[in-house]
Amino acid sequence: MDLKVADPAATADLTVLASQDDVAALSAQAEQGGNPVIPMVSLLRSRLRDDNPAAARWLHGGLTSQDVLDTAIVLCLRDTGERLRGEIAGQVRALAQLAGDHRATVMAGRTLTQHAVPITFGLKVTTWLHGVLDADDDLAAASQRLPSQLGGAAGTMAAATLLAEKAGVDDAPRRAVDLMTYASEQLGLVAGSPWHTSRAPLTRLGEALVRCTGAWGRIANDVLVMSRPEIAELAEPTSQGRGSSSAMPHKVNPILSVMIRRAALSGPAVLSQLHTAAALAVDERPDGGWHLEWAALQALARETVVAAGQVTELLDGLHVDPARMAANAAGSCDDLLAEAHSVARLFDDTAGTVERPTRLIAPTPTTLDGYLGATDLLVDAALERARQFQGATR
Amino acid sequence: MDLKVADPAATADLTVLASQDDVAALSAQAEQGGNPVIPMVSLLRSRLRDDNPAAARWLHGGLTSQDVLDTAIVLCLRDTGERLRGEIAGQVRALAQLAGDHRATVMAGRTLTQHAVPITFGLKVTTWLHGVLDADDDLAAASQRLPSQLGGAAGTMAAATLLAEKAGVDDAPRRAVDLMTYASEQLGLVAGSPWHTSRAPLTRLGEALVRCTGAWGRIANDVLVMSRPEIAELAEPTSQGRGSSSAMPHKVNPILSVMIRRAALSGPAVLSQLHTAAALAVDERPDGGWHLEWAALQALARETVVAAGQVTELLDGLHVDPARMAANAAGSCDDLLAEAHSVARLFDDTAGTVERPTRLIAPTPTTLDGYLGATDLLVDAALERARQFQGATR
Amino acid sequence: MDLKVADPAATADLTVLASQDDVAALSAQAEQGGNPVIPMVSLLRSRLRDDNPAAARWLHGGLTSQDVLDTAIVLCLRDTGERLRGEIAGQVRALAQLAGDHRATVMAGRTLTQHAVPITFGLKVTTWLHGVLDADDDLAAASQRLPSQLGGAAGTMAAATLLAEKAGVDDAPRRAVDLMTYASEQLGLVAGSPWHTSRAPLTRLGEALVRCTGAWGRIANDVLVMSRPEIAELAEPTSQGRGSSSAMPHKVNPILSVMIRRAALSGPAVLSQLHTAAALAVDERPDGGWHLEWAALQALARETVVAAGQVTELLDGLHVDPARMAANAAGSCDDLLAEAHSVARLFDDTAGTVERPTRLIAPTPTTLDGYLGATDLLVDAALERARQFQGATR
Amino acid sequence: MDLKVADPAATADLTVLASQDDVAALSAQAEQGGNPVIPMVSLLRSRLRDDNPAAARWLHGGLTSQDVLDTAIVLCLRDTGERLRGEIAGQVRALAQLAGDHRATVMAGRTLTQHAVPITFGLKVTTWLHGVLDADDDLAAASQRLPSQLGGAAGTMAAATLLAEKAGVDDAPRRAVDLMTYASEQLGLVAGSPWHTSRAPLTRLGEALVRCTGAWGRIANDVLVMSRPEIAELAEPTSQGRGSSSAMPHKVNPILSVMIRRAALSGPAVLSQLHTAAALAVDERPDGGWHLEWAALQALARETVVAAGQVTELLDGLHVDPARMAANAAGSCDDLLAEAHSVARLFDDTAGTVERPTRLIAPTPTTLDGYLGATDLLVDAALERARQFQGATR
Repeated sequence: MDLKVADPAATADLTVLASQDDVAALSAQAEQGGNPVIPMVSLLRSRLRDDNPAAARWLHGGLTSQDVLDTAIVLCLRDTGERLRGEIAGQVRALAQLAGDHRATVMAGRTLTQHAVPITFGLKVTTWLHGVLDADDDLAAASQRLPSQLGGAAGTMAAATLLAEKAGVDDAPRRAVDLMTYASEQLGLVAGSPWHTSRAPLTRLGEALVRCTGAWGRIANDVLVMSRPEIAELAEPTSQGRGSSSAMPHKVNPILSVMIRRAALSGPAVLSQLHTAAALAVDERPDGGWHLEWAALQALARETVVAAGQVTELLDGLHVDPARMAANAAGSCDDLLAEAHSVARLFDDTAGTVERPTRLIAPTPTTLDGYLGATDLLVDAALERARQFQGATR
Repeated sequence: MDLKVADPAATADLTVLASQDDVAALSAQAEQGGNPVIPMVSLLRSRLRDDNPAAARWLHGGLTSQDVLDTAIVLCLRDTGERLRGEIAGQVRALAQLAGDHRATVMAGRTLTQHAVPITFGLKVTTWLHGVLDADDDLAAASQRLPSQLGGAAGTMAAATLLAEKAGVDDAPRRAVDLMTYASEQLGLVAGSPWHTSRAPLTRLGEALVRCTGAWGRIANDVLVMSRPEIAELAEPTSQGRGSSSAMPHKVNPILSVMIRRAALSGPAVLSQLHTAAALAVDERPDGGWHLEWAALQALARETVVAAGQVTELLDGLHVDPARMAANAAGSCDDLLAEAHSVARLFDDTAGTVERPTRLIAPTPTTLDGYLGATDLLVDAALERARQFQGATR
Repeated sequence: MDLKVADPAATADLTVLASQDDVAALSAQAEQGGNPVIPMVSLLRSRLRDDNPAAARWLHGGLTSQDVLDTAIVLCLRDTGERLRGEIAGQVRALAQLAGDHRATVMAGRTLTQHAVPITFGLKVTTWLHGVLDADDDLAAASQRLPSQLGGAAGTMAAATLLAEKAGVDDAPRRAVDLMTYASEQLGLVAGSPWHTSRAPLTRLGEALVRCTGAWGRIANDVLVMSRPEIAELAEPTSQGRGSSSAMPHKVNPILSVMIRRAALSGPAVLSQLHTAAALAVDERPDGGWHLEWAALQALARETVVAAGQVTELLDGLHVDPARMAANAAGSCDDLLAEAHSVARLFDDTAGTVERPTRLIAPTPTTLDGYLGATDLLVDAALERARQFQGATR
Repeated sequence: MDLKVADPAATADLTVLASQDDVAALSAQAEQGGNPVIPMVSLLRSRLRDDNPAAARWLHGGLTSQDVLDTAIVLCLRDTGERLRGEIAGQVRALAQLAGDHRATVMAGRTLTQHAVPITFGLKVTTWLHGVLDADDDLAAASQRLPSQLGGAAGTMAAATLLAEKAGVDDAPRRAVDLMTYASEQLGLVAGSPWHTSRAPLTRLGEALVRCTGAWGRIANDVLVMSRPEIAELAEPTSQGRGSSSAMPHKVNPILSVMIRRAALSGPAVLSQLHTAAALAVDERPDGGWHLEWAALQALARETVVAAGQVTELLDGLHVDPARMAANAAGSCDDLLAEAHSVARLFDDTAGTVERPTRLIAPTPTTLDGYLGATDLLVDAALERARQFQGATR
């Protein structure tokens, strides 16, 4: 489509003009103007000049540094989102399998670190699953509305308008908007008003990333507790030489969970940097807030992608020990059924208050079946949500 | 609807049983068990016992402290959301008015604190407006899916199931789920699986609140810069004795913006507490992460509600000085049109590079009209978005 | 001491002029000017006017709102520091007792959640003790150099200078400084240059508070892990009805540790607000950064003081089960001594690499004594540090 | 000094055994065990084995991964501290020069963005200077007590004790402590108890770094405000092509201040990660908290060092425009002297309250001299503090 603004001769494949080898020099030069776009444009122009002077001249016409950098960041984040959603698909598969397999695996439910009431391991896995699906919901929503940034120096599209006017276009302002829309479509991004100082696209994506690491952290925390030697209900996969120790040859550290947990603990502070940056937006381009986003998004994206793979590996190879779960639960059977006893007393007219029972009822299979019956329905609901996710992402 | 589980006699209006006068004692007792639900249940039971012993016995049956507290927090957050959206409706009205009124009010666009290119004040206001509408989008989404929490001690609904079983219900687990669904409907909340350790409902709401204060902070930052005496393009409303000084009788401080900015700067760190809490979820109820949420949500909700009113007051009474805007822009007219000059050179074959111009073109009304033509389209788009918001919320 | 500046008649006891009953009205009025000093000065003046018009006129002379508020905050923080150091003295006593009592109580050392090598519980307690003493070091340092704030509207002491000049003092500027120095001494604070925009006094104090909660959190984390029923090496004191559950009568939750941990997890984000406030200082008084400190410091001080008492209660009543520690360690005796085996192989010339041993040496009392001998020296060093602290604070 | 524990043959220069070329492989392998020490030890052993099998065997004897990594981080932080203090020495020189040169340069003092009372630019610079010196105080304190970490697998020094025992040393535990002390001295670090779970050494250093960037941010904020074209009292140095724009050839952006401000805004959240890590310490080595520190410290150190150089460049070349300062102040002369007028009324018996004056006194040089007289004393005090710093660091 020719929007008849730029010189048709100004067409060039820029991807062949620069490479990884230019990064060090560009980084050093980025220091001078405070962003890498200025030296990048200079470099590309100098390399275009001899063979395609029109392209050298037209390059970056109508754009400002923030347009280029914001759009580049959005494209990186889109790739990040796609990669994460690929990992999540595998995680949902593994989680659904675990939840179904262990819907009848009784274990001690724990609250505030103490044994509370019986649960099933399948039910626990559904809480992991819902967390991951919640994160995916937000990742999908944030990814689908990622916008381009093409507003020019102060978001007025003035340079593009002027270019269209000089090119003799009738309705130059409208053509400037059409240019922006067309370029956005080419990039697969949403066209819209400039958002130089209104940063919801980035903070929303950041939130979705932190929701991912948070959901994974919740899984890792459980694995870390349940793989303690005194509990020993879960164990990490040990393939790939994972978890060895430099001083203690016997040790197998739950290192996947440790690293996942690290990402979960790192994310919230990084997200606060993004929100601080957004809150400090001022003028038509901020005096530091914008610059603050770069390292934050880079750290957040990298840590989330790395953690995603670790979670998939963890879930695919997680060792579950139902016998140990049963043994640990049996060890505090009376305590675990204390709630059931309390409930039973609701039907006993002589008891006005609920006291700590001195002698507890023994569990029978029948009692326990009824007691845990609703967990089956909760597992069913989670598996149905997983199926809907799989249908939507297939 | 009678779900035939509880004793029909166990019906009581709890709202008359406790009052503001009980708060101090409950707060002190809350220390013992780590949450206020335990003493609250004791208090209510003791006050029910004489007149309605059945209600005293059945009270809290099937629930756990976290059910009560999480649901209570969700109800408070729903009220917070409604109040905020009411304020936002007024803000959108004021912003749309300002954007329309000033679509032709030319002023200096500023980037990295320096004059960049001309903009209109109307266009600047659209960036404020988009920020507020982005926040409202998320506030609406988070508010609409606020869930009840009714899972029992470890999220198994076991006590409710057992109660149904003892009451002779056929499919006790299903009845437990029906009970939860019915109670959720009564509360106007979404029914679903327990989320004791999967905290997206709260972090999403927290994010929406921080998006609000961030959007408002961006407005306040502009007002603070533009009301500096050397710039003097905007001034805060001075009604209600706002902004006086204890030492300097002449001063009128832009105190609304200062306080709004404070809320915007406070929010990100508080949100990081909510995400840290979510990332530390473990077992069936966490050992501190859950407790961390309470003060964070309280601070965030209070600061956001207070800031909302300040923003409405600010926008309703904002003084705009178009003459001063024109004067400031005229003072650096050559600089502001330097980009236009650069663009013009794209059509000049003899210029291979874009140099700093030594002598700049003079602006003419015609030139400027074309140059700023696209801002009209951007203002139109923002006003259309505001109208859609107003249609949806009326 | 009469510095001969103010009217001698302008002497009044302000403490009787306002009370807790005025707080609500002052809070509401504080909204107008953005701080509570403005209405407070008005209130005091109105109450002084009839009986002591000179005092009404001279009140607040030479001061600015920030002087009053910063100095008030510093005085509150000084009280906070003193109260905390009183609690810490009790904690150090309890910790020294525990470390000494359990210097020979062998238990499993745990790294990355897994059994590593044997330690003594006394050694573990020294790590708690060092953390608390590190925090006290910083608390003492920050408390001892808390400054007054007495600079006037823009930190120039101009009003005080002018007052001295009008009063006929020879060297008016010097007298203004003397006034500031004298007032600081009266308050027991350090005299110095105004620090309206240089906030180290507050961030340092905030850091010391967060170091306290962090050191306590480290203790709470250990108690939470070690009081898990499968480990059961420690238990919280159960006096005062602590740790009961609303649904499960058998449960005793480690609620002190849960609440201490909450404070430890809350602090870092609040401290980041203080540092953000400091980093945003601008002009002669900032446009929001200053205001951001108030709620942050209030939250931090309150949470730290509350946690301090909980830690003292926890340590004073902590139940230690040496038999269970021994049993847990014995259960993985071979693993715990794997390092010792590796070390022994260093003296075996035939072994070029360190392999996972297939059959492990049995521990003997002699071996273990040597193996843990250095822990005695480490406990001695910690107890010596505790004694020095006690000598310094007695 | 021969402590007669290790085989004397096990002496090797490790620095020649690995190089930058090994980093990529080590990084990839670090993933497996969760830290880079494990593959690093393997690599060094494999390269030592042929030529010095004793060294291969003894390498890492008595140490654990955390010993190596913590000590390495401390050494990096020591270098960071030294580099920063070198930059700060230059900054103090520049600041003292500016403060002295401009002690009589009158300008408008600004509070909450509005003109308040007159100040001198020299006085403003002293607030910058005090901030930088406060940061240096903490940097010096934190750097001087940086400890080694040499505790072995669980901080018991057990392996070192066992090695000494096997080597026939009489008092093996004491020898293990001597080994640790000797090694610490060789590294120039403080010897002491292991701090695997007590992280004050790192959080203190982190706080000092954030105090640096905060102090510099306060300077940058002033430069950004005062270099706005409507104010134009300061301008950044323009050497080195700093501050050019990709779209607007006329623009000179205050890019040093923008980047310094970015560092100041980034630091607080990173520090909160360090404090969160410290608060989550548990067992004898934490399950994620430790790992969280690495990226945080790396980011913080890098950003602080980069900002340090930018601040030095900014201060060395800062353009000050006293005429513009005078003009801006003269423009609101009546307002700036309103406080003086209020003060004067204190001596007027007929005025019971301080009203907004309707007609203001004119400033006279004499009045102003007295009014600003104390600023001279404050500048003197700041210059004296700078001289003491220079004496101490020479």
